[in-house]
Amino acid sequence: VRVRVLGAAAGGGFPQWNCACRGCMLARRGEATPRTQDSIAISADGDRWVLFNASPDVLRQIDATRELWPRRSRHSPIAAIVLTNGDVDHVAGLLSLRERQPLTIAATSRVFGGLFERNILLRTLQRFDGHLHWERLQLDEPIALAGLEITPIAAPGKTPVHLGGAAEPEDNIGVLVRGDQRSIAYVSAAGAIGELGTRVEGADALLFDGTFWSNDELSAQGVGQGTAASMAHLPISASLPLFEGFDGRRIYTHINNTNPILIERSPERRAVEAAGWQVAYDGMEVLP
Amino acid sequence: VRVRVLGAAAGGGFPQWNCACRGCMLARRGEATPRTQDSIAISADGDRWVLFNASPDVLRQIDATRELWPRRSRHSPIAAIVLTNGDVDHVAGLLSLRERQPLTIAATSRVFGGLFERNILLRTLQRFDGHLHWERLQLDEPIALAGLEITPIAAPGKTPVHLGGAAEPEDNIGVLVRGDQRSIAYVSAAGAIGELGTRVEGADALLFDGTFWSNDELSAQGVGQGTAASMAHLPISASLPLFEGFDGRRIYTHINNTNPILIERSPERRAVEAAGWQVAYDGMEVLP
Repeated sequence: VRVRVLGAAAGGGFPQWNCACRGCMLARRGEATPRTQDSIAISADGDRWVLFNASPDVLRQIDATRELWPRRSRHSPIAAIVLTNGDVDHVAGLLSLRERQPLTIAATSRVFGGLFERNILLRTLQRFDGHLHWERLQLDEPIALAGLEITPIAAPGKTPVHLGGAAEPEDNIGVLVRGDQRSIAYVSAAGAIGELGTRVEGADALLFDGTFWSNDELSAQGVGQGTAASMAHLPISASLPLFEGFDGRRIYTHINNTNPILIERSPERRAVEAAGWQVAYDGMEVLP
Repeated sequence: VRVRVLGAAAGGGFPQWNCACRGCMLARRGEATPRTQDSIAISADGDRWVLFNASPDVLRQIDATRELWPRRSRHSPIAAIVLTNGDVDHVAGLLSLRERQPLTIAATSRVFGGLFERNILLRTLQRFDGHLHWERLQLDEPIALAGLEITPIAAPGKTPVHLGGAAEPEDNIGVLVRGDQRSIAYVSAAGAIGELGTRVEGADALLFDGTFWSNDELSAQGVGQGTAASMAHLPISASLPLFEGFDGRRIYTHINNTNPILIERSPERRAVEAAGWQVAYDGMEVLP
């Protein structure tokens, strides 16, 4: 199984279009590594790939990833797209995956229904018979996609802004993905740990929510009032010690532009690495 | 006034994610110039910029254009976004222009209403008081935006797929944009000429619909059944002689990946250049 990070930044990317924080300025000057928005690609056979989330940057992610290029016209190695929630930065890329290409989308009822039953713009994805095929995801029920076994697991999250209402468990999920003898856990948004610690045990790698370093990071940098908790992201300062017994590779991803771990040689980056974690970047091969 | 092409390709971009036509393969091999999706930026003062259309590639277009970088946090030189129609490749980028940034969108009632009154995903753009400000565009009525005078003009087009129904004149417009003593005409989609020939007279530059070379280009290359006419795009083979009396710079843009003018030294590219036209590319300065 191959696992490749397509984008390692949280919503907005790094640098973010309207932000001039220290990290964004360093990224624009070439002194920090830019990152596109959160998405990973996994393949059991190197031929067919499953995308996990469709970021607004999906076209440049495909451009940058030779394995995802078409081998003939109206072809794509992308066999399916798994959505872990309905956030704009995880679904807007679907609008770019058009051009008469049938798509298989795997998502919970809650996420799929929110997008496709109530969204007129996304009707452009249902232009011909067979254009869109939905694989329903349910918590703890494995499905098979392109040679991979994918099991949705609970990850406490929040309801996307455009849906509103109270959060339900299927609004935000993590996934365990197994191919051959190896597996990874991908949990790019989690507001709490819950049972995640035991659910990811035994995986060869964990890609975990690295959105914020601290709970009050946005207000401390003067770029927002919300806290990590209000956005249902456990900050790294809280999650760092939680997976110490995990045997596989531990990697933070979905990293917000304000997070100091994006700045190499920062104390926070060193603290993360000293604790045995790595920081994801675009193009990273998670299971080489 | 400064006019910069941000993206010169039609919907899908060049190369297109699921296409392996000759042009797309050349672009992937670095033997043709890749182009992102149609958008231009115009500034009267070099400080505030108006975007014309918000392509799905808007974030990488901003990354590539130093003039559009923020000068402080929660700032953008982008003063407004003019939408010339409601096609996905002209509006999906709005979903990327979030992050607590107030936006001014100029569009006809028909285009704005189609997107914002009926689209739940785009509600993410209306998250706080004053987030979204709408400037209503009406045919032949100039408005002032960021020091520019912008006049919508009729350009026969079609209704976006996600709206359906019969086409109305305000579904698709061209614009005349004047700053200082100079002006340009931007008509990136036109199914016919109508009165455009006389309306653009006197402009210093014309950016015109270069989607297709010929009417049956898609079927001839085996990548679709639609004709240029059915998609309301006048092919270049028909528009090439129509602006011979135009005094300013003539440039084709919104170029589909199948259009042979994207291939340098092709007979079609030479024919276009011999007729006095140029082929737009990302980063092109239209009025240097």
